[in-house]
Amino acid sequence: MAEPTVCVAGVGTALPGPPVDNATLAARLGLDARWIDTFIGTRTRHFAVDLPSGKQLATLADLAEEAAAEAMRRADVVAGEIDFVVLATASPDELMPATVNRVADLLGVDRVPTYQLQSGCAGAVQALDVGRMLLGGAEHRTGLVIGGDVCARHMRLDRDFHRAPSAELVNYVLFGDGAGAVVLSTDDRPGAPALRAVRHRVTGLRQAPGQVIRWFGEADRDTDVRGFEEDYKAIEERVPELAEQALWELLDATGWRPEELAYLLPPQLSGRMTRLIRQRMGVPDAEEVSCVEATGNNGNALPFLQLERLVERIAGGERAVAVCVEASKWIMGGFALEGR
Amino acid sequence: MAEPTVCVAGVGTALPGPPVDNATLAARLGLDARWIDTFIGTRTRHFAVDLPSGKQLATLADLAEEAAAEAMRRADVVAGEIDFVVLATASPDELMPATVNRVADLLGVDRVPTYQLQSGCAGAVQALDVGRMLLGGAEHRTGLVIGGDVCARHMRLDRDFHRAPSAELVNYVLFGDGAGAVVLSTDDRPGAPALRAVRHRVTGLRQAPGQVIRWFGEADRDTDVRGFEEDYKAIEERVPELAEQALWELLDATGWRPEELAYLLPPQLSGRMTRLIRQRMGVPDAEEVSCVEATGNNGNALPFLQLERLVERIAGGERAVAVCVEASKWIMGGFALEGR
Repeated sequence: MAEPTVCVAGVGTALPGPPVDNATLAARLGLDARWIDTFIGTRTRHFAVDLPSGKQLATLADLAEEAAAEAMRRADVVAGEIDFVVLATASPDELMPATVNRVADLLGVDRVPTYQLQSGCAGAVQALDVGRMLLGGAEHRTGLVIGGDVCARHMRLDRDFHRAPSAELVNYVLFGDGAGAVVLSTDDRPGAPALRAVRHRVTGLRQAPGQVIRWFGEADRDTDVRGFEEDYKAIEERVPELAEQALWELLDATGWRPEELAYLLPPQLSGRMTRLIRQRMGVPDAEEVSCVEATGNNGNALPFLQLERLVERIAGGERAVAVCVEASKWIMGGFALEGR
Repeated sequence: MAEPTVCVAGVGTALPGPPVDNATLAARLGLDARWIDTFIGTRTRHFAVDLPSGKQLATLADLAEEAAAEAMRRADVVAGEIDFVVLATASPDELMPATVNRVADLLGVDRVPTYQLQSGCAGAVQALDVGRMLLGGAEHRTGLVIGGDVCARHMRLDRDFHRAPSAELVNYVLFGDGAGAVVLSTDDRPGAPALRAVRHRVTGLRQAPGQVIRWFGEADRDTDVRGFEEDYKAIEERVPELAEQALWELLDATGWRPEELAYLLPPQLSGRMTRLIRQRMGVPDAEEVSCVEATGNNGNALPFLQLERLVERIAGGERAVAVCVEASKWIMGGFALEGR
């Protein structure tokens, strides 16, 4: 039996609060807005926390539910038709229950298998991979694949930012919050783009992580261990190279020639890095589908935000490749889509 | 093409430090050891932290690597033959990188897809499910599926336990640390038990979680929100019923009759709960394979510890069912194995 065609039946996204521009963020952090413009290249982002008051506006479950509900509406499916839910995140609301089960509850989805992947920028790819495998047999026809992140728990807003090291402040400037979701289905849906390939793998053997994000429990919440660490130099060096490799592996997996690509969805670490990565990846004739300048790097949500923009444009027969790179332990991957 | 048979080619486990008995634990917590004997029914457990000094003995990555290395040795496979790694845990060492990638690095496994499932007592089932799906195509032949938990970050040992509420102390008494791993393979391996079915699903629509475990970040590590919450009454009420349901669903999925079961691997919340669950599940002629009295409830590790004991005994043609229930959002599931 040939594997069924898996299509993207609907995409939805959710961004908390109003966009926060560089002037507002710079004033709050005591930074120069021009520095953000130039060295980061991201113009706005959304936070699940209100910057002036520090009050949390939304949980990951809230955002994931909003995105998933929109994807279901666009795909014209109801809760009873959802055969599984997969969620990828680096920032679960709690360690248990896994947030995916809170989201299923909010959506009214029950008695189906659920999966939550702990992952960063490559999580959307891993989640699509699991979703596609779940649709590979006869057991399931339609499922939800979600990605999202909420940085609020990492953002200490009650402090004097003038004394904070710039390596720490840059996190507040790079990242954002959000969620995205797709309904995947093997039903015959004219016009719904087909998911042709999904690939990802770890590549960081014997290499230090480019990014570490810690959590604290009852026993170590009082220590002064820092929650974040990044090696920006390593990230700038390695990510473009891994993005290029991932692109070629996806072309190899699909048998597509580079000049056949109508769209490219590049990794979105920041506005500036995206431009560097885009240059390195080549395929200059493919139209770039990006969103980081407007949304910041919102991790597991971001490829879904790009996908939402892509499905609005992609025409029958047009081909697109999305590439993701996760600096944590140097994970690379992506997926290939074809308009129908 | 028929789905290939997936077999358990090797099992390995890892338990940190020496077993901690009830007398030792009771003395440390200011409890009566007889209370632990009677109401919990667990005799010993292992902790990844040294109780007298509070010093951490092992991370989740350490334990997972030890278990996986043993599983690989027993399956006679080397790092280069591992096509994927799946890890299930409720207590990742960090939020990023996902611990599965640290484990791959320690094992010398590279350039393969990795998956980390955020999950509790049902995580081993979810991980086996993902592993089995990965082996469903022609792409992969052999992979690692791991489960483990380390409670050390939740255990505040620098406190006056005489003032702690008993609902909190019970956590120190119920849980333990550990990891387990299996090598799954589609290679023809005479004598290796076949994985015949894997099932799991969330069932907790509109129901409060039976267990909540929180993490803290930079922004909320100073608050006094508690890290743990359990509803023991709900757990005692619902888990036996869900375990019974899961057993019948697995019998239904395999087409096996209850009297054909040679072995039953029941959920292992505590020694006492396991006895109650066992009674409710029926199938009195099936031999019980348990370990909780010796290891405590070590979450994602536990089904692998049971599996290790099972594969030592199971003979050609003998059938076994393992059942897991996760109280968090009332997830039930299990897997079916057949000796060859």
